[in-house]
Amino acid sequence: MTDQKATNVTWHDHTVTKVERRKLMGHKSAILWFTGLSGAGKSTVANTVDHLMHEKGIHTYVLDGDNVRMGLNKNLGFSADDRTENIRRIGEVAKLFSDAGIFVLTAFISPYRADRDRVREIMGEGEFIEVYVNASLATCEERDPKGLYKKARAGEIKGFTGIDDPYEEPAKAEITLDADTKSIDELAQEVVAYLDANGYLSA
Amino acid sequence: MTDQKATNVTWHDHTVTKVERRKLMGHKSAILWFTGLSGAGKSTVANTVDHLMHEKGIHTYVLDGDNVRMGLNKNLGFSADDRTENIRRIGEVAKLFSDAGIFVLTAFISPYRADRDRVREIMGEGEFIEVYVNASLATCEERDPKGLYKKARAGEIKGFTGIDDPYEEPAKAEITLDADTKSIDELAQEVVAYLDANGYLSA
Repeated sequence: MTDQKATNVTWHDHTVTKVERRKLMGHKSAILWFTGLSGAGKSTVANTVDHLMHEKGIHTYVLDGDNVRMGLNKNLGFSADDRTENIRRIGEVAKLFSDAGIFVLTAFISPYRADRDRVREIMGEGEFIEVYVNASLATCEERDPKGLYKKARAGEIKGFTGIDDPYEEPAKAEITLDADTKSIDELAQEVVAYLDANGYLSA
Repeated sequence: MTDQKATNVTWHDHTVTKVERRKLMGHKSAILWFTGLSGAGKSTVANTVDHLMHEKGIHTYVLDGDNVRMGLNKNLGFSADDRTENIRRIGEVAKLFSDAGIFVLTAFISPYRADRDRVREIMGEGEFIEVYVNASLATCEERDPKGLYKKARAGEIKGFTGIDDPYEEPAKAEITLDADTKSIDELAQEVVAYLDANGYLSA
């Protein structure tokens, strides 16, 4: 904590910049965009990365269905337009978090490549890290933690990704995680190792 | 920086909480919601508070027209519905920032009491600090930094707050700033003093 010494100075010609905020945070910032099928483990891996980074003193935040679908995007449904708007808003909010100096981890299926690439385009070089949580449909359907695949197969849910709506694999993900064979902890450590190796964890 | 000692532990049953994020930040967090007429000085005071807090090592972020209207809310116009949706989204995003452990300063006219109160309602006790930047219409119209009042008086802009659209004064603002007679620096210091006196600046 640095006390303000001068009180007679006019500050309002100065806006605190992203670089200054990152310096105060003690590390860089970026979006970690987790994408993959329902049940692949996006949210679980993201929350584990969140925990590991927090333990290292890195400032992070997770955006997922829990805090976005009930709040910011509660007026959106599941039509094609609404899905695109859902991802657009999440991308814009994630950009603000990264600008604020925080690592923001987003955990959404985000099945369409164009939607994800649009987020990449609004970010600066190195500030969008696409993390493909790659689990096969067979694995996800076998896990089916929320019973959604069963409902989709029974026709009770329409337009379900992987069943009757496509999942477009990332063409250029910065990180691809093998979620069929590795543990959550191994996958999370891979993400942290990437950030460390690429200089993200220092200012 | 605390290194992760154990690598064989399952973390994914644990989600990092707001309390833990605030502890790492070293201070509490809240929304500082600046409201007032166009030209009252909301953005200037907010940015000065931002700077003063940053100098004290407090993590902050400003949401204003520059980073919201061009991004998250670029698909909104100025109809009554769009104005309400504009404030709703800003409120939801501000809530996420406060949840992340950051002081978020919002600088929007936000003329309708119901819109502001709706944001207050989604926040916890003490997490919504309404800052009324109280400048008279005469003062704002005389300053007219963007020439908007002149255009509104000439009928070139319709539905301009204070001219042909109402500004509803806060009934219960936590902080009311006298922007007719005091300097930007004095007003900004008042906001920081409020936060300090109410225990916001320590964890």
